[in-house]
Amino acid sequence: MHTFINTKKTIRVSNDFWDVTTAEGMAGIVAANLGDGRHLTEPGGHEFVNMSSYSYLGLDSHEDLIRAAAEAVLDNRSLNTSISRMRLHFGILKRAEDALSDLFDVEAVTLASCAAAAWSALPLVASGAFTEDVPPLMVFDKNAHFCLNAMKPSVADETEVVTIRHNDLEALEDLCRKHQKVAFVADGVYSTGGRAPVKELLALQEKYGLFLFFDEAHGISTLGTNGRGLVLEEMDGINDRTLLITSLNKGFGASGGAIFLGPRGSARRRDLALRYGGPLTWSQRINTAGLGAILASAALHRTSELEKLQQRLQEKVDLFDGLVPTASAGDGLPIRFIDIGSEEATVRIARDLLADGFYTSALFFPVIARGRAGLRIMLRANLDDADIERFGARLNELRGDERG
Amino acid sequence: MHTFINTKKTIRVSNDFWDVTTAEGMAGIVAANLGDGRHLTEPGGHEFVNMSSYSYLGLDSHEDLIRAAAEAVLDNRSLNTSISRMRLHFGILKRAEDALSDLFDVEAVTLASCAAAAWSALPLVASGAFTEDVPPLMVFDKNAHFCLNAMKPSVADETEVVTIRHNDLEALEDLCRKHQKVAFVADGVYSTGGRAPVKELLALQEKYGLFLFFDEAHGISTLGTNGRGLVLEEMDGINDRTLLITSLNKGFGASGGAIFLGPRGSARRRDLALRYGGPLTWSQRINTAGLGAILASAALHRTSELEKLQQRLQEKVDLFDGLVPTASAGDGLPIRFIDIGSEEATVRIARDLLADGFYTSALFFPVIARGRAGLRIMLRANLDDADIERFGARLNELRGDERG
Repeated sequence: MHTFINTKKTIRVSNDFWDVTTAEGMAGIVAANLGDGRHLTEPGGHEFVNMSSYSYLGLDSHEDLIRAAAEAVLDNRSLNTSISRMRLHFGILKRAEDALSDLFDVEAVTLASCAAAAWSALPLVASGAFTEDVPPLMVFDKNAHFCLNAMKPSVADETEVVTIRHNDLEALEDLCRKHQKVAFVADGVYSTGGRAPVKELLALQEKYGLFLFFDEAHGISTLGTNGRGLVLEEMDGINDRTLLITSLNKGFGASGGAIFLGPRGSARRRDLALRYGGPLTWSQRINTAGLGAILASAALHRTSELEKLQQRLQEKVDLFDGLVPTASAGDGLPIRFIDIGSEEATVRIARDLLADGFYTSALFFPVIARGRAGLRIMLRANLDDADIERFGARLNELRGDERG
Repeated sequence: MHTFINTKKTIRVSNDFWDVTTAEGMAGIVAANLGDGRHLTEPGGHEFVNMSSYSYLGLDSHEDLIRAAAEAVLDNRSLNTSISRMRLHFGILKRAEDALSDLFDVEAVTLASCAAAAWSALPLVASGAFTEDVPPLMVFDKNAHFCLNAMKPSVADETEVVTIRHNDLEALEDLCRKHQKVAFVADGVYSTGGRAPVKELLALQEKYGLFLFFDEAHGISTLGTNGRGLVLEEMDGINDRTLLITSLNKGFGASGGAIFLGPRGSARRRDLALRYGGPLTWSQRINTAGLGAILASAALHRTSELEKLQQRLQEKVDLFDGLVPTASAGDGLPIRFIDIGSEEATVRIARDLLADGFYTSALFFPVIARGRAGLRIMLRANLDDADIERFGARLNELRGDERG
C-alpha cells in the first residue's frame, strides 16, 4: 500500500494551499471567451489575458477549426455512434485518424483525452504486447506527467516498475544492461518546462533495443516539421520501438488525445490497442465536433501557416526571455517557470497580476516540491507584444517587491 | 503481480475470437448516420439498424441536442479554455454542471468520459476523503464494469480491496460486520444486463454506514423521475454516503461523464474532487459542443417528453420480450443478453443478422465467461415495431438453425 500513491497524505500536505488560492480568487474562475486567449470574468466583466494557455499556436481561436467543429455535428446529425468505436463508428472518425496518421506518418488512434491515451497504452506496453510478448521493465522518469504516474499501480500489476531521477541517462543505461527488455516512460516536452534528451535516448535504443514511451502533449504542433513535435522531429519519424501519446486539445487546437502506436500500417498494434486498450475499447471517444476540428487542424498543419505560427511563437518566447530571466530561457520551448518559493507569495503575485489583466497559474505541491512554488507562464503565437512587455515589467516589479 | 490484471493472458485467450469477428466483418464497421439508429456502411451502402445502441431514448438523434451542440461551439468561439478547468472555465461549463446538479438534486461535476469519472472518484473514495478520513475496505462486485475493475490496482495502493460474487449481499454484510468502514462498488444497471439490489444495499447502509459507489451509465435517463436513473429512483434521491458516476453519452444523449458527489451543495467534496480527482484536475473536459448538448438534454429531461420516451422504451422492451425469450425478460431494463454459447456460432449469427439489416454486438471473453458467448441487444424508444418484429423472428430462426 502507498507504493506509488497516497492521496490522503497529498490532501493533508497541499489542501491549505488550494484554500489560499481559492480565497484569493485564483481558482475556478468563470469567464467568457473574447478570442485569442482574452477573457471576461462572469460575473464582474474584468478583462484579462491568459498567460498560462497551452494553445501555443492560438489554434483554439482559429475560425476554420471552430466552423469545422460545428459543421461536423450538423453534418453527422449526432455527437457519437452510441456504441463502442471498435464495433461501429462514423466515417469522420476514420477520416480524422487517417489524417493524423498521414500527417505525422504514424499509426494513430484517437481517444477522449491524453490521459485516456496513457490509460490505454501503458498497461499494453507493460504486458509485453509491443516487445515480442516479453513484459519489459518499465522505467518512469520522476517528472513524467501525473497521468503517466497515476498508471503506475496498473503497470506494476503487469510487470516491474522503477522510477529514476529526471533525465538520468546513466541510471537508465545501467538498467538496460541488466534487463532483457526495458521501456522508458517520459514526457517529450515537460509540462513544467524542459525536455527529454531524445538523441541520447535514441542511442540507448540503438544499443539495447530500449522501448521509448513519450507523452508529447506539449510538443505536438508547437515544434517540428508540420508540427510533428519535439520527439518525432529529433527522431526524424517514428520507429517500431517507440510509442507516443499526445493531446489534440493543446497546441493542436481540437479535442481529445491520440496514441501514435508505431509506423504507419502497424496493423497488429492497432488491433491489440483497439481490442485490449482499456478506454479505447469502451464507449467514449472524441465527439463529432472534436473530430471536425481535428480534420481542419490536420489540413492547416500541412500549410505554410503552421510554420508561420511556429515562428511567431518563437518570437514571442524570445521577447519574453529578453524581459524576464528564467532558468530555461533560450531552450526554444514555450513554457517558463517563474521561481518564487513561498506558496503564499506566489498566490499573492498571481492575484495582483490578475488585477492588472494577466492570468497566470500558481504551481505548488504536488506538481512541484514544497517551498519551491512559482508561476507557470506559457507563451502563445497570438499574444500581443505590448501585452508581453507590460506583463514582463509588472511581473519583475512584483517579484522585486516580494524580495525587497 | 497479476493480482488484478493480466493483459498478456487476456490477449492469449481471446485474440482469436476478435480475429474471427473481424474476418466476418463484424468489427470496426464504418457507417454514415441516417438518424434514429439507422446507418449506411461506408463504402458499400448497406443499410442497417443498430440493435445494440445504448441511446435508449434515442436522444443521440434529437434535433434540439444536435443544434445546441453546434451553437455552443459557435457561441463560445472555442472548444475549450486551454487550461485546467479548476483554474479557468467557460460559463457554459458552470451552467451545464448547475443544470445537472439541479435536475438530479446532486452535486455534479463533469469529465471527458464515465471512465474518467471512475478514475477520478475511486482513488478519492479509497483514500477516505469521503468517509471521515478513514480509508474504507473497498468491496467490488465481480460484475462491476471494466472501467471500475481497471482501477483496482490504484485503489489497492490506497486501501484494501476485496471482490465478491455478483450481488452477494451476504458476503457484503459479513464484511460490514468485520470492518469499521466499507465502500461497495457496483453498477446500478449492469452493462450486460441485470441490476444492483438497491433497497437491500440501502438497508446495509442504514445498519452499518456502508458507503455506496454506483456506475449508473446505463441507468441515467432510461429510468426514474426526470431520468434520474435506477439508483436515485429507488433511493428517492442521493444521500451523503452515496456517490454515483455516469455517462452523459449514453441515454443522456450528449458527451462525457459525470460524478454525482453527494447532495447538492456538498462543497467540501467538490473541492476535494476538483483538487485531487486525477483527470478532473488535468486539462481535458467536455468540449463546448458536448456542454451545449448537456444543457439541451437537461432541459428536455424536465419536460413530459422524457416520460413519454421512457414509456415508449418500455413498450419496445415488452414487444421484444414477447418475441424473444431471455433470462432477464420482464425486468424493466432495456438490455437483453441472447445466450448462444459457442463464440463462432455467435459471430456467425451476428453476421447473418447484419446481412439482413440488423447490427448486434457479439460478446465473449473477457466481457463474459468463456464458452458462454452471446449477443447483447439494447432496446431503444426510437426503434420501429416492425423492425423489432422482423428482427425477433430472424433471430429465433438463426438460433434454431444453430441448435438444429
